[in-house]
Amino acid sequence: CRRITKMSVLQQISPHVKNIKPLDYALLTKRANQIKEELRQGVKKPYKQLLDLTWGDSHRTGVKPLSFVRQVLAACLYPELLNSDKLPMDVKQRAKRLLGICGGGSIGSYTATAGIPEVLHRIAEFLTRRDCGAPSYPKNIFISPGCQWSLMVTNILKVLVNSEASPRIGVLTPVPCYPTTTQSIMGLGGVVVPYHLSEKQGWELQIEELHRALESAKGVCNPFALYVINPGNPSGNVQSRKSIEEVIKFASEKRLFLLADEIYQDLVYGEKSEFISYKRVLTEMGPPFSNTVELASFHSISKGFTGECGLRGGYVELVNLDPAVMKHIYKLFSKDICAPVLGQIALELMVNPPQPGDPSSPLYKMETQYIKASLTQNVKRLHDVVNSLPGFCCQPVQGGGFAFPRLNLPTPAIQKAKRAGMQPDTFYSIKLLEDAGVLVTPGCDYGQKEGTHHVRFGIMTSKDIMEEVLKRLTNFHTRFMKDFS
Amino acid sequence: CRRITKMSVLQQISPHVKNIKPLDYALLTKRANQIKEELRQGVKKPYKQLLDLTWGDSHRTGVKPLSFVRQVLAACLYPELLNSDKLPMDVKQRAKRLLGICGGGSIGSYTATAGIPEVLHRIAEFLTRRDCGAPSYPKNIFISPGCQWSLMVTNILKVLVNSEASPRIGVLTPVPCYPTTTQSIMGLGGVVVPYHLSEKQGWELQIEELHRALESAKGVCNPFALYVINPGNPSGNVQSRKSIEEVIKFASEKRLFLLADEIYQDLVYGEKSEFISYKRVLTEMGPPFSNTVELASFHSISKGFTGECGLRGGYVELVNLDPAVMKHIYKLFSKDICAPVLGQIALELMVNPPQPGDPSSPLYKMETQYIKASLTQNVKRLHDVVNSLPGFCCQPVQGGGFAFPRLNLPTPAIQKAKRAGMQPDTFYSIKLLEDAGVLVTPGCDYGQKEGTHHVRFGIMTSKDIMEEVLKRLTNFHTRFMKDFS
Repeated sequence: CRRITKMSVLQQISPHVKNIKPLDYALLTKRANQIKEELRQGVKKPYKQLLDLTWGDSHRTGVKPLSFVRQVLAACLYPELLNSDKLPMDVKQRAKRLLGICGGGSIGSYTATAGIPEVLHRIAEFLTRRDCGAPSYPKNIFISPGCQWSLMVTNILKVLVNSEASPRIGVLTPVPCYPTTTQSIMGLGGVVVPYHLSEKQGWELQIEELHRALESAKGVCNPFALYVINPGNPSGNVQSRKSIEEVIKFASEKRLFLLADEIYQDLVYGEKSEFISYKRVLTEMGPPFSNTVELASFHSISKGFTGECGLRGGYVELVNLDPAVMKHIYKLFSKDICAPVLGQIALELMVNPPQPGDPSSPLYKMETQYIKASLTQNVKRLHDVVNSLPGFCCQPVQGGGFAFPRLNLPTPAIQKAKRAGMQPDTFYSIKLLEDAGVLVTPGCDYGQKEGTHHVRFGIMTSKDIMEEVLKRLTNFHTRFMKDFS
Repeated sequence: CRRITKMSVLQQISPHVKNIKPLDYALLTKRANQIKEELRQGVKKPYKQLLDLTWGDSHRTGVKPLSFVRQVLAACLYPELLNSDKLPMDVKQRAKRLLGICGGGSIGSYTATAGIPEVLHRIAEFLTRRDCGAPSYPKNIFISPGCQWSLMVTNILKVLVNSEASPRIGVLTPVPCYPTTTQSIMGLGGVVVPYHLSEKQGWELQIEELHRALESAKGVCNPFALYVINPGNPSGNVQSRKSIEEVIKFASEKRLFLLADEIYQDLVYGEKSEFISYKRVLTEMGPPFSNTVELASFHSISKGFTGECGLRGGYVELVNLDPAVMKHIYKLFSKDICAPVLGQIALELMVNPPQPGDPSSPLYKMETQYIKASLTQNVKRLHDVVNSLPGFCCQPVQGGGFAFPRLNLPTPAIQKAKRAGMQPDTFYSIKLLEDAGVLVTPGCDYGQKEGTHHVRFGIMTSKDIMEEVLKRLTNFHTRFMKDFS
């Protein structure tokens, strides 16, 4: 009887869910957790501590939260603090104002499902400022518990990807790409149509490749949306205005819905690089582009200087959507209660930081500049060290939270990996973890050109941790290459 | 060109999403927001303030957050507070311990996708205690941003409801029922199979009705799960052990997956009522039930004494699931990043409150007892007043956050509503809003027996607000019945 009941469940599982492959990352974290436990129990290893660069999670790896953000949030949570003389005046004023826009004056209340209206207004103001006057409207902005939610599970792809469409809906997706995106497209019954970024051009997006990808979808699916990540994860590329214009023209010509993941917009390191938003370029291109190309652009508090992954807060701005479609998106958001209120408040603080003259301004400026300087140095150091190692080649990291260097592994290493039933870069990553206590993610989880191998390093970490990682990596890699030469 | 692009989007929208009907509640809140704006602009009305009893949101309507919870959370957010002499010692110790289980010691870090392991352990301990020894295992518990997420958008129904199955998957769902549940089942491509709770038996769940409902699904869909809400929303019913046993036997016999929404478990008012969990009854029934019936039970920080809707935190415990199914559920949770860390921490505080002897214990006890006493009084007052009004009839509210009294509207009122193209209870609710500034939700949003009408009142509010509501309701209702007699 038991057996039959269980089987009945399994038979029902959606094939879209069944088809999602687990990541090699899961294998690595499992082993990492065992190693942590072994270290705790005093097992002797060549290192005392695991260094984990797999996350895009700056606080985890030693970057300090912004004092202004934490002070305002603490005062909102525990309003007794408004009477304290330990908090700056502008912190208390901000907290009071923000509590005033919460239901019943408590961050414990639900909010409107798209987000607190005043926060949506602030975001729209920020976007208009950021995009040099390109107008933004609160009614087109939806707050959600982080961008992955907003993009995927929640509502945008859910509206777009009709799992029963025949042929299936396709989404053009970069290679390499953050895997939750591809998994979610598949989980919703969509088809991932890969386009390759050009590694030797610093992971540039190339229009000919978009054409090729679109062609490849013929007879397979109905390509409907084009997903771009700028600055790139894991690529580290930052698109130029010209590149964005080309993508918009392509989307317009092929009638593709543009999904622009722009959550790393604050993190640009390259001296000649500048973040320009899709929304801005689209607006400045004028008609027919500016009033026809459908665009969803995503941003979040998890990255950049705020780095508050744990609070869960992101938003999407929708441009040029038909009101009939907007109606369905509203409906889906309504079904989903609301995003965490402290995440919404942190969004407000991110788009509306202390201004010159405010008591919190000098410290805020110092802290953000310090983070920027640290990450810029991390990127430079990682790039230089990795490129100094044999068989390792890192493109310039112009922006974002990661570097994705290529690993030219010796044939014996590749053969050994194959015998162990592993992807070569997973094999490398597991050895790096075992021998040097450094946790990175293998390129196979992100997609890569057949026959090439990579690893992804998170760069949002303190300078000290980065130096220690580079020291261990250098020793490990040198030995590894010798062992397998 | 524009027109074609837009149309192409609309054509792709999943029919499951298109078919979700907007709620009448949306109509009411729209008007309520206009009224609020009018009041702000000084427009004269018979009331100065809107009273909104549509939410299950206690802080919004005057219930105070628990000091212990807010103090610990504030200290986790802003660890400088650990040096303050204003916070009790146990608050500081708890905050320190909880920061120790966060990545990098910051609540700004991501956590494991199922939740922080230590919090999962605490929840399992709590469940074992609550269920008098019925064992609970952390690996079967998943934390999510609230129960609706966990149940719906996220992962449980997503795994269970295969949108492409033919015949479609059916979920037996109570009438009346919180509408996000039914909407989500439909949004995922499932079929809602309604079973009616028996109003005249105090909204009891009756097994014959489950049989009838199951029979009704023949030829329509493949019924696969049975969804129960205990204590009921909006019904206010609390199931007896005997009733739960019957439901479990039915689920076992018919091989249905049990989805038990138990988020109101702390709120029981009836003197003869007691909350007993499905998990406990299932365990105590022994084999073959205890080791075969598949159960998902949901709980949350949004309701009960904590009332922290805005933090977004809930969990699901899964019982008797096949490991192969669990694997897919893990995979889906992994795709979804993690639940807000402060919500996870608030869960830990809920399942592990201050103990006798702890400095925070007396205040915690006082605050929770005050909330319980207020809500018990609200329920009694609402029940008595509503039942004293002609054409109104409220079943005893034994538990939960709502009362769902029946409205026997005079024929002229029903006719007038029909002429206005409205459901009669929506018509009543809109007039109550316009004339008395009291916002409630109409029964038609929850489902009700053909020809019957209801309104739902939230009872999680301060006593003052409840009294003011009852005064306005009495005046309004008396006039309404006279006008339409």
